[in-house]
This record gives sequence, C-alpha cells and structure tokens, in this order.
Amino acid sequence: MATRLDTAFPDALHALFRRVRGLSEALAAPLSDADASVQSMEDASPAKWHLAHTTWFFETFVLRDHVANYRLYDERWPFLFNSYYEAEGPRHARPMRGMLTRPSLDEIRAWRAHVDAAVDVALPGLPDAVRTLVELGCHHEQQHQELLQTDILSLFALNPLAPAMWRAERDPPAPPPAPIRWIEGAHGIVEIGRNMPVREGEFAFDCEAPRHPALLRRHALADRPVTNSEWRAFIDDGGYERAEHWLSDGWAWVRREGIEAPLHWRRVDGDWADFALDGLHPVRPAAPVSHISFYEADAFARWAGARLPTEAEWESAAAAVDSASGNQLDQAGPVRPRAAAAGTGLRQMFGDVWQWTGSAYLPYPGFRAAAGAVGEYNGKFMSGQCVLRGASCATPRGHSRASYRNFFYPHQRWQFAGVRLAKDL
Amino acid sequence: MATRLDTAFPDALHALFRRVRGLSEALAAPLSDADASVQSMEDASPAKWHLAHTTWFFETFVLRDHVANYRLYDERWPFLFNSYYEAEGPRHARPMRGMLTRPSLDEIRAWRAHVDAAVDVALPGLPDAVRTLVELGCHHEQQHQELLQTDILSLFALNPLAPAMWRAERDPPAPPPAPIRWIEGAHGIVEIGRNMPVREGEFAFDCEAPRHPALLRRHALADRPVTNSEWRAFIDDGGYERAEHWLSDGWAWVRREGIEAPLHWRRVDGDWADFALDGLHPVRPAAPVSHISFYEADAFARWAGARLPTEAEWESAAAAVDSASGNQLDQAGPVRPRAAAAGTGLRQMFGDVWQWTGSAYLPYPGFRAAAGAVGEYNGKFMSGQCVLRGASCATPRGHSRASYRNFFYPHQRWQFAGVRLAKDL
Amino acid sequence: MATRLDTAFPDALHALFRRVRGLSEALAAPLSDADASVQSMEDASPAKWHLAHTTWFFETFVLRDHVANYRLYDERWPFLFNSYYEAEGPRHARPMRGMLTRPSLDEIRAWRAHVDAAVDVALPGLPDAVRTLVELGCHHEQQHQELLQTDILSLFALNPLAPAMWRAERDPPAPPPAPIRWIEGAHGIVEIGRNMPVREGEFAFDCEAPRHPALLRRHALADRPVTNSEWRAFIDDGGYERAEHWLSDGWAWVRREGIEAPLHWRRVDGDWADFALDGLHPVRPAAPVSHISFYEADAFARWAGARLPTEAEWESAAAAVDSASGNQLDQAGPVRPRAAAAGTGLRQMFGDVWQWTGSAYLPYPGFRAAAGAVGEYNGKFMSGQCVLRGASCATPRGHSRASYRNFFYPHQRWQFAGVRLAKDL
Amino acid sequence: MATRLDTAFPDALHALFRRVRGLSEALAAPLSDADASVQSMEDASPAKWHLAHTTWFFETFVLRDHVANYRLYDERWPFLFNSYYEAEGPRHARPMRGMLTRPSLDEIRAWRAHVDAAVDVALPGLPDAVRTLVELGCHHEQQHQELLQTDILSLFALNPLAPAMWRAERDPPAPPPAPIRWIEGAHGIVEIGRNMPVREGEFAFDCEAPRHPALLRRHALADRPVTNSEWRAFIDDGGYERAEHWLSDGWAWVRREGIEAPLHWRRVDGDWADFALDGLHPVRPAAPVSHISFYEADAFARWAGARLPTEAEWESAAAAVDSASGNQLDQAGPVRPRAAAAGTGLRQMFGDVWQWTGSAYLPYPGFRAAAGAVGEYNGKFMSGQCVLRGASCATPRGHSRASYRNFFYPHQRWQFAGVRLAKDL
Repeated sequence: MATRLDTAFPDALHALFRRVRGLSEALAAPLSDADASVQSMEDASPAKWHLAHTTWFFETFVLRDHVANYRLYDERWPFLFNSYYEAEGPRHARPMRGMLTRPSLDEIRAWRAHVDAAVDVALPGLPDAVRTLVELGCHHEQQHQELLQTDILSLFALNPLAPAMWRAERDPPAPPPAPIRWIEGAHGIVEIGRNMPVREGEFAFDCEAPRHPALLRRHALADRPVTNSEWRAFIDDGGYERAEHWLSDGWAWVRREGIEAPLHWRRVDGDWADFALDGLHPVRPAAPVSHISFYEADAFARWAGARLPTEAEWESAAAAVDSASGNQLDQAGPVRPRAAAAGTGLRQMFGDVWQWTGSAYLPYPGFRAAAGAVGEYNGKFMSGQCVLRGASCATPRGHSRASYRNFFYPHQRWQFAGVRLAKDL
Repeated sequence: MATRLDTAFPDALHALFRRVRGLSEALAAPLSDADASVQSMEDASPAKWHLAHTTWFFETFVLRDHVANYRLYDERWPFLFNSYYEAEGPRHARPMRGMLTRPSLDEIRAWRAHVDAAVDVALPGLPDAVRTLVELGCHHEQQHQELLQTDILSLFALNPLAPAMWRAERDPPAPPPAPIRWIEGAHGIVEIGRNMPVREGEFAFDCEAPRHPALLRRHALADRPVTNSEWRAFIDDGGYERAEHWLSDGWAWVRREGIEAPLHWRRVDGDWADFALDGLHPVRPAAPVSHISFYEADAFARWAGARLPTEAEWESAAAAVDSASGNQLDQAGPVRPRAAAAGTGLRQMFGDVWQWTGSAYLPYPGFRAAAGAVGEYNGKFMSGQCVLRGASCATPRGHSRASYRNFFYPHQRWQFAGVRLAKDL
Repeated sequence: MATRLDTAFPDALHALFRRVRGLSEALAAPLSDADASVQSMEDASPAKWHLAHTTWFFETFVLRDHVANYRLYDERWPFLFNSYYEAEGPRHARPMRGMLTRPSLDEIRAWRAHVDAAVDVALPGLPDAVRTLVELGCHHEQQHQELLQTDILSLFALNPLAPAMWRAERDPPAPPPAPIRWIEGAHGIVEIGRNMPVREGEFAFDCEAPRHPALLRRHALADRPVTNSEWRAFIDDGGYERAEHWLSDGWAWVRREGIEAPLHWRRVDGDWADFALDGLHPVRPAAPVSHISFYEADAFARWAGARLPTEAEWESAAAAVDSASGNQLDQAGPVRPRAAAAGTGLRQMFGDVWQWTGSAYLPYPGFRAAAGAVGEYNGKFMSGQCVLRGASCATPRGHSRASYRNFFYPHQRWQFAGVRLAKDL
Repeated sequence: MATRLDTAFPDALHALFRRVRGLSEALAAPLSDADASVQSMEDASPAKWHLAHTTWFFETFVLRDHVANYRLYDERWPFLFNSYYEAEGPRHARPMRGMLTRPSLDEIRAWRAHVDAAVDVALPGLPDAVRTLVELGCHHEQQHQELLQTDILSLFALNPLAPAMWRAERDPPAPPPAPIRWIEGAHGIVEIGRNMPVREGEFAFDCEAPRHPALLRRHALADRPVTNSEWRAFIDDGGYERAEHWLSDGWAWVRREGIEAPLHWRRVDGDWADFALDGLHPVRPAAPVSHISFYEADAFARWAGARLPTEAEWESAAAAVDSASGNQLDQAGPVRPRAAAAGTGLRQMFGDVWQWTGSAYLPYPGFRAAAGAVGEYNGKFMSGQCVLRGASCATPRGHSRASYRNFFYPHQRWQFAGVRLAKDL
C-alpha cells in the first residue's frame, strides 16, 4: 500500500483520480435506483453501496483526516458505508446493506460530486503521505468497480427476466481453440513480490511486499486458460459426479449446493447458455471458462492430469508480459471473456479471467501490514482464502500487474474467475 | 368469498374498484423505485410486489379467464407475481421477491393502468359470478394495502437513518387514559360468522362462513385496548424476564430473539421511542400498544390477571359496533394508533390496532373452501396461526366487519397488532 | 392434576406406585447402557433420562418437599434431570441429554431403588395433598413409559442394522378390513372435560378441566382408524405429491423434508416395510396406519372427502367406551397396532393408535393451571400444538380415559399416532 | 504412505501391530458402553467407532483384499465403519456415528480379536506390498488413538459432572517458567519432507513427500511453547476483546461463538480451571497452553509481537531433535501437557502439545497421492486446513517424526494444540 509518485508530475495522480471517479459513475449509469440498492447475497454489495463506500474512503482518510475545516457531507453516513475497518468504529452490518433504500442513488451521486470537488481543491496542496492515500483510494475504487460489475451480474442472474445491463454486438463465431501448448517456466530461485516503497508512478498493495526469493521446480504453464468447450468435456465426462476428482471440501460443496456447471450457466432448450451483463446467450466454446470456484478449478486440473500453478510460478512467468495488455476494462460497457488470439506464447495472462492458483493467501515472508486503519486492507484476510492472479475483462485497465494478489474463498465464484493449467516437467 | 351485489346498482362495484386501485397508488406515491423494490424479510413483500400481485389477480382471474381475446400484458410476469396459488402453477420463490429490480416501479404502474382500463371496459358486461371475482379482488387488494404499509414500515425500521414516509403533525398530548372498565358480554348460545352468499352490498371471505352457534361463558371485555403506558409497567415489572408469564414457545422466542419491547420501540437517550411511518417519536402513553406478538399479548394478559378474548366473545360484542367507525384508513398519509376517545362503552373495537384473540385459526364447523384457485385464499392456512379481530389504523375503511378473521403466526408482530383484555365473571 | 383417592383404601395408590415403577424398569430391561444413553433427536430423550427424570419427580416434589430429613441421593443430579420446570431453577439443556454417559444406567437403577424405598416408607404417612403428588408422579411416569418406547424406536430406526428390542411372534395374516362404517354422534350441547377434584379412584390432569358444555353439529365418526392399506392407496394416488390436499404449512414440510410415507416405512425390495420395536417387517395392510403427523392426517382426510374429528366430538363418543379396553400396554414386550376386531360399533377408540383431532390444544373455558411448579405441567404448552385423543399400543393400560388430551406439534410423528375420520351429516 | 521394512526382521512389524492393537483397547478400557458410543459433536467420533474403524481398515485392505478365503466378520459392518473412502462405496453419515448403539462395545472387541487373530496368522506370509498396508494400518490406528482420547475429552467436557477417565497424581507445583529464549534457525535453502520409499524401519505418510528444498529467511524459534500463565496475560490484556489482534475470520468466530479462553477452561470460584481426562483442576501456570485454535494462536502471536513458524522452519529445526523424546503417550493413563524441563535449547518440540504453524496444508511440490483407496488418506484434505507440527501428550510414542504434517481447520481446538512463537531476525 505504499507507492511513490514523482512529485514533479502531480497531474498524473489527479488525472487518475478523475478518471477513476468518472468510470464508477459510468458503470452505474444504466442502473435504476432499485438495481443499485438491492443486495443479491451476503458476499455481494449493492452498486449504490460501492459508489458510496469508495466515496467514504476519500472523505474519511483524506478529507476528514487531512483537510482543515472539512465538514462531513452527512454525519450519519460513515456508519452506513464503512466496510470492515474496525479501527473506524461500529458500522452497518454487511448482510443489511441491501436494506438501505435511502439515501437514494441520486443522493449518493450528489455526495460523490461534493467529495470530488473537495478533493480537486485540496489535492494540489496535499503532502506526499496524503497523496499516497489518494492513490490508494483510486486503486481501492478500481477494485470496487470490478465488484460492482460482478455484484450486479449476480443480482440480475436472480431475475427470471434475465435483464441485460448493456446491449452488445454478438461476437463473430470463433474457430475452435488450438490445443493447449505448454510453456516452460523458470526454475530455481526467482524473485517475486514488490519492495516498498514502489518506484515512481507505480503502485502495489501491502500484501504484495516484500520482494523475496522463491524456489521453483521445473514446470510449465498452459499457453492459455481452459475454454468453455474443454469445460463441457469435463461436464460430459461426469466431472461433477465423480468424487475422485475433488478435494473433500469441494465434493461436500458440490453435493450440498447441487453444483453441476459454472455459476451462470443454464440449460436452455437442451443446451448450455451463459448469463452475462449483456443477457443470456449460448455458451461460446472458444472463450475461457469463467465463474468457477477454486474447487472446480482444482477438480478440472486433476481430471486433466495437470495441476494449478503456484502464485510464484505465475508471477515469474507474468513478469515478462505487459500487464496493461489483453481484454481488460477501458470504459463502461458490456464485458465478457473472449477467445484467445492466435499466437504462440503465454496469452490471456491479463484480462478475460482471473486465474486460480494453488496457493493459499498467506503473508509473504517479512510481510508487515500498513499502519493505521488502512492496515486492515489486506492482512487480516490471510486465512482460508486462495490466490488468483492476472486480471479479468472487468478489471479496469491500469489496475493490474504481475505482482497483484487477488483472493477469494475456495467456494466463491461470482467473479470472472477461470483456470490456467500447470504441470511439472 | 361469496357476496351478492344488487345488479340494479352496478356502479357500486365499479366505484369500489376505482377507489381501491387508486388508493394503492396513492399509498406508494412517496416511495422511490428502491423503496418499492426491497424486501425487508421473508414475511414481508416489496411494495412494488404488492402493486403487481394485486394487478395479477385481476388480470388472471378476471381478464384472462373471463374476457374474450384479452392478451396478457407480459407473459413472463404471472410467474413473478403469483403469491401462493398452487393451482396457478410454479411461481417465483417468496424469499426472492426483493431481487426483482425489474420490472421497475414505473413499469408496474403502467401495467396497473393497462389492467384498470381493461377492467373498466369489461366490467359493465361481466356476469354476476365474475363480478364476484372483481369484488374479491378489491378486498384482496385492500388486504395488501395494509401489508404494503406494514412492510414498508418494517423496511424503513432497518435503516439507521429512520426515514419517514410521511410527515405528520404531532398529536397534542393526551391525558392519561382512564383505567380499564369491564363490559360484560352475552353468554349462552350466540351466533357468529356469516352465511353465504352474504346480503346485497356486503362482503365476506369464505373463512367467515358458515354462521353458526357458539357457546359463551359469563365474561367481560375491556372497554379499550391496553395502552403503551400499561405496557411500560409490564416491562418495568420484568415482564420480559420472568418465565412464569409466558407460554413455553413464547419464552423460547423471547430468549432466542432477545425480545424486550414491542417491535419498533427503541431506547433513545434513556427513554422509549417508537418508530412509525412518520418517523421516530417518543412513545405516546395513552395510545394503544402496537406491534406485539401473540406471545406478548398472552404474557401481558397473564401478568395482568386476565386473559385474551375468544373470537366468539369478540365478535358477539362487536356485532353492535359500527365497523366503519374508528381510526381506520381513509386516504394515503401518516397512520398511527391514537388514544381512546372518552366514553363509556366498548371503544376502539375497529381501528387503531388489531386485537389478538386466544383462538386458533381453524375452520368453522361446516366450512368449505371456495371452488377453484381462489379456494386457496384462506383454508390452507388453517394451522398454527392465531386469530386477530377488529381493524387497525392501516386498514382501509370499509374493509372491516365484525366477522372478519385476520390471522398471523404467534411470533409475528410487524402488523399493527395490540391486545384487548378479557376475563371470566 | 387433582384427584381424590379414597383414604380408606390407601393400598390402591401404593400398588399403583409399585406397578408403575416396576414397569419402567421392565421396559428398559432389554436396553444396553449405550441404548439407554443416546438421544436420537431433540424431540426425544434417552431411555436412561426417562428413568431418571421420573425418579427426580418423586424425589423433588414428594421426598425433598414433604419428607422430613430426606437427603438428596446426589445433589448434582436434579440439575441433570429436571425437564422444563422453570420454577425449579436452571437445568441441563434438552438437546444435550444424550451427552450424559454418566451417571450410568446401573447408577440410575440404584437411584430408583433408593427413591422407591424411601417412598415405600413414607407413603403410608403422607397427607392427602402429598398423596395427590404421588399419584400425579405415577401418571407422569406412565406418560414417560410411552415416550421411552417411542424414543427408543426413533433411535433404533437410525441404525442401519435395524435392531429389534423384542422378538415377537408374527401376527397371523388378517383379512382385509371391512369398509369404514359411519357412526352418528350426539349433537347439540354435550358436556366434556372433568371437574376438579375428580371422583375417588380417578385421575385427570389440570388441562382436562373444567367440565363444560360444548356444541356439536350433526356428524359421524368412522368406526375404526384408517388402515395401512388405505394409506397405501393415498400414496399410490399421489397423495404426497399434490398440493391441493395439504395445508400450506404441511405442504412446505413435505417438500422440505422429502416426506413420502409414514415415519418408519421403508422401501424394501420394491415393497413397503415398517420398522417397529420388533424389527423390520412388511407393512400389515389391515392394521391402523401409525407414525403420521397431523399434516398427513389432515391431508388424508381431505383426500378422502372427510375431515378430522374435533376433540369434543371424539370425547362425546368415547364416553360410552371402556377406556381400559383395546390394545394397550399390559407388560413390557413388543407393541404394535393391530387390525380391528370384527364388530359393528366404534372400535379401537383406545389402544393401537392415538387419533389426531382437528382441535388446537387450547385452554378449556375457565381453565386454571395447578399451583406450584407442577402448574407448568400442561398450561404453558397451549400454543401451536394439536390434540390427539385415545391411547396407543404403547400406552400403559389404566392410564387412558375419554377426557385425556394428548398434544404434539403438527409435524411430529414419532408417536403411535394415526387417524380416525369424521364427517358432517 | 510408503515405507521399507527390512524383510530380514519381519517381527518388527508384527510387534508393532500387536502393540498398537493392544494400546487401543487399553485406552478404551475405562469406558462404559455408553461412553464409547456417544458422539460429542460432528468433528468427533465415538470411541467405539474408532475401535471399529481401525479394525475395518485391516479387515478391508489387508484381509479382504489379500488373504484368500477370508470372510467378513459381519457383512453389514463395513458400511458402518468406513470413514471417508469414496472408493469403498457408500457409508454411514458421519454426524450419525453416535446413533449406533449396536453393535455394542463388547461386540466390537470381539471383532477386534477375530481380525487380530486373522492378521496374526496371515502376516508372516504376506508380500511386502501388503506388509506396507499393515504398517499403514498401524500408523492409522495410532492417529485414531490420539483422536479417541481427545474425542472422549470433548464428550466428558459436556457433562456437568465433569467425570474423570483416569485418576492421576497431581503434579508438584512447577516453578514459573523462564522467559522465552530465541533460538536462531537455519536460513537459505534447507531440505524438508521425505523421499519415498522411506528407509528401512521408518514410516511416512504420502503427504510428507517428496523431500524438496525450501528457502528460509533469517528467523528464530522460541525455545518452548507458550505457557498457560502467558495465555492468562493475553486474556487479562483483553486479548479476546480487541479486533486488532485477530484475523478477520478469527474475529468473526470469536464474536459468534463467544470465545474467551481455551476450550476446556472454565471459571470456577473466580479463577480458571482446566478440564482434562483426569478431571477438573486449577490451570497449571507453567504448562503449555493447549486446546487453542489456529485463530487464537495467530492472535496471541500478533499480540506478542511475534508470528507463527512456517512448517519448513519448524521441520528444519526439529530434524536435530529426537522425535521419540518428550512427553508422549507410552501407555493408557492420564495425559496432560507438562511444564518445560530446564534447559537451554529447543524443548517440547515433540510431546505435550502440537504446535500450530502459519502454513496452509497444501501439497508439497511434486506430491502424488498413493494409488488406490488409501490414496484418499491425505491429499483430498488439502484445502482450508492449517498444519500443526510436533506431537502431543496424547500421541503414541513412536508415531511422531520431524516430517509429520498434522492438519486441522483453523477454528478447531479439541486437540492438544498449542503454540510456539517465531520471529524474523
């Protein structure tokens, strides 16, 4: 969570701030007040809550704490829109976020405008330490932009009318993907992670630090993620019905929840369709499978005679790939994973789908949480979750990097999460 | 659920239809799209759902079934807005009603207008049997008008901002209520219930029939409901903390849920306040206590050395009271129970608060459910629920009558439900 | 819960005490220490707990309270073996009764012997008021004798080995039962219930009082309970799969629990078998169906075009039947419902199976709970439960009477509970 | 799960088999039939089930599969006593293990004798591959010996009588422990884990393989585990009440479960007592704290300004310690953690308490599960669990080794689990 922006170019941060704030509003533009207020499940939050919480972050940690005479827009709202920062005091219970029909979406938009204006005024005069908080707030909001999209998707998926948030041109039919090719990775000692503070113009969360050596065996990564057509072969081979492919916890989850396909797949007229933000469409065979849990990714890998990569293997390979490339989010609009472009090397490392690794989300050797309330950002979640790497079609471009550690519980699958296979050599 | 309207005065039904449909929309007028879409708990429904479900009733049982060439406004919506009519096929799960952010509130309003226009055209030509269904639909919608208000109250009560749906003048302070006076009732054989078909211009649900004799012992009813100040005495005497006052199931409920006061009471600055549709206000001592469960009503009665009335005792006494009198709903606007007017006889039998009886909701001797899907209206709920009698401040005036049997589970208390004591003589 | 024993014949009570205490031990004789210690579900209790709790009743309410210098056998045990008497202070949680592997079954037997000896010594000198408590303790223990049998049955039913508690001769095949004949009952005002104190040599619980008038319509009762073969016809006709037969709560229960037959029925080699205390046997067609819930009884009655009797109808008819007749429990050994004997009048009113009524378990007009801790015996359970009448094959002979009100929740079915139909005339 | 026993000394395995089988029976000797049959919670199993399941292992994988003409002792029992081997077919549901009052403890003992006799006869003639299964069965049974003790402890802890399984001399008061001293470990590349097959006379489970390099930073381990007196300082400092010490999942667990001390600690007369297999005794200050969860261990470490060791750090240091040393189980009898002996190096690495590490239980690089049903032994549990290292006072001596990977979910704490601190240098 530390960074260094070149103080000779203050506009870069300011530009980032404006771009990020604007994108959030563009993403929410197609939503009605009701769409933005309802919470689909405890894991998800209403879109309005995302818009408000990210605003609370700037108002609290920047304006309230560091701008003289700033007065809270509404003194009652911090209680509503704090997420989980214990150091910031009591807060509204997470499962009740969807009960907040007031303040309205428009009132939240007005709050956003108010806070944005105050930051605009204050930013040029803020010291570096506070600029770092502004930058953190931007990256924090980018995370919530991705969640806003996946949370709305999970809400619309519960509506039998299958509403589309965006209208999209249909993809032209893609040729069947070439078989997976295996790309050998580095072995021996490699360095992963980031040292703090990061270099000028860069950013990393505290959990990505410190940079440290890791030992890799001889191994290879698949050149692309697993596709929907490959996933259908897994289904057709009884993949969800045979215990031997599954971790014990995963098998219990499959049985208990009646899982038989990725999250948003539905049987329509005897075939599989996939519900996305642009509505319900036939599953596209050549696109990467998405909305799968760690348990499913792991079972598929075992069925395929492979395994999941470790996060060190993934990062080591990704270091040579442009993290701003690929199918990531440039502007509000329909998002969906796309078929791999032709090519020979590692493709789709960034964009399309996050990739589950076999690594538990644990502190790196020598990890220290950031000081203050923002120190609750990452470290306290380091149990029971699994690391995903890369970026998805819903990740704002510019937000991703090789060292990025995304993390979810092994049963969660409402993100654009897929799988890239690995194997020992 | 049978009635007889004088066919010489067809306008009465048409006028009722228009009045009822208009009131629903007036009640929802202050709500935002979000307010109208969120479901506060499984027991409650979104306001939009009430507006839609009552419309579905007319479209299905009147227009679809009895108007030639009527085409459904949207073929996908009946699945969404059927409540519990098994004979009408599968339907959207009740706990998921709050996930339906689409269709929007405005779309539902447009549907209402469409259906209203079609009924307006068709009604003059409908045969008596179908006019009976229209009338049933009106009374059905009046029930949902009361639920719409209590469901919104339960939703707003979950919002820490305590939003008010209506602004209201504050009541002038009421003098302390006179002590309860006991009014002796009839004893021996009395007749209760209704014969079907009811007389011209009247209405009753099937569960109110048939009229039948009931045996009453010597008893008396309190001249008015229990007040908030009396309820505070119960609290202050440890009423919620002493098992001996409570039914076993009630005591388990109190312990499990941490119940210590009526539903919408909150401690504010060391005193009790009461959240209502006009916001959070100090508890008004002389007004009837409201939002209590059967368990609480029963415990209070035992603590007070009294008991709950039976429904036959209540109805026998109420037969002499004008059921259109009292504090009932005349138009959209703030509602709340009010202090009893001065007087000497039975007061507040209708209006202010429903009154829990000690009677289980069971079929009357000789009961037969109505034929067809509407036969699911009442009979299938005849287990595990308790009867309430009277009417509340949220009951549309004209909807109540002495024979009316309202019913809820013994722990439910989100209705305007209070208690009138009875005792043996 | 009041009675009058002729003080000129003190031995009758003493004889009852000894007979009851001996029967409990005989019933538990085939059980291992483990059999007697495990709790099959929260509704049930371990057999050892029944043996201990009934002993606690005598030790507490007779010996401790009324016998000078009596010292508790073990001061720690009352906490363990109080069931639900709040006035007797805190107690071991009901769902944890099965965790008490100590004291052992043999230790409980020793306690029983100790308490029995103390009562034997004290009884001749006890005043009438305390003799009443001894008598109450005997009837209380008879209730637990029935529960001991049904609780063990529910435990053994969970064991895939299907262990038999008793070995029994197989019944000779019974001829198919004659069709139901309808026996008209009294109508108009009848008297039911009991006045307290009851006559010499009789007994009743407080909930059976007071005797009071009840109004009956013209009706008839079936001459015998519904048989297993009739129940199979219900199953074969899709009875468990068609919502229109069911109360709403019942239908939800059927769907949620996957109910498709009476509790202990299992499909074996394509046919139905019935697990009982003498093991797993083919369902006997002519025997009364047993182990059904109120919901099932009610659904069957609706399917059959009939209804359940009210408790007043049942008691009015039963008053002319010898309550000590029929297939009730005379000694420890295999119990099972048996085919109706040939005959023309009401048969199997007592014995074989309890009969669900359509009446809620509510206080009779003028009911008052007994004073003291034993006042918690009945009155506090008067919500949410349904009345059963008669007696079963597991009811100790002498314990049953026409006025007896047994009660369970509508979903419970681990008792020997069946159904006798009624209809209006 | 592979090993090599010197075929020149076949008696070693036979001796191991006899010793292990005898110890299980000695451990169960103080138990009544009821003690051995009841299941305290879903995580635990009845003692009788442990005795049976370990016997099923030998009967199935050795006798049934590899001894000609062996007939199952009872064909119905494998269904009851298979634990989780999907490849062995359906099995009795884990939460229902405590319902099996039959077969009795004595019947299980007879089965044990039968199987032991058959193995005694067969063992001299078995080929190496099957001898390996016998050896695996012995180590498997040793694991269940430890569980048998902790499961009985969790059962007896639920009994308000606090029964003691064993009577024990009280420890003489121990002097207060010396403050922790930090022992620096190796850093750089170390080797951990085991190669398969292991050397003659040794044993390892499949999850301990393969031996592989690991990278260690500069670090130190505490010379002894955290003591009860240190844990009391954590409690007294509000350790259980301050969110900042806790992982997010841990904090939710503490709040939800009302955790305020180690599992078997109880407040008695204003002080802490500790329930153990020899009854309830005052907490012994100098003994290692036990029965804590991973969440508690982690919170304590954070509070103490330290961290948990990684499993590689722990194993690297333990390789120099005699794994058969320390307070481990030699014979049936009272077990409890004891104060550290005086000394200067690493103490209590083996014995007293297992030590939570900060490592997730994941496959080692290159891990392959064993073939066949026994391949379900370890690999399928590699998600969501944490590694513990060492051995406890309940671990049979000879069963522990530096490479041993024990694992439990982070909230589980019914094992003898404690914490040894680590820190970076």
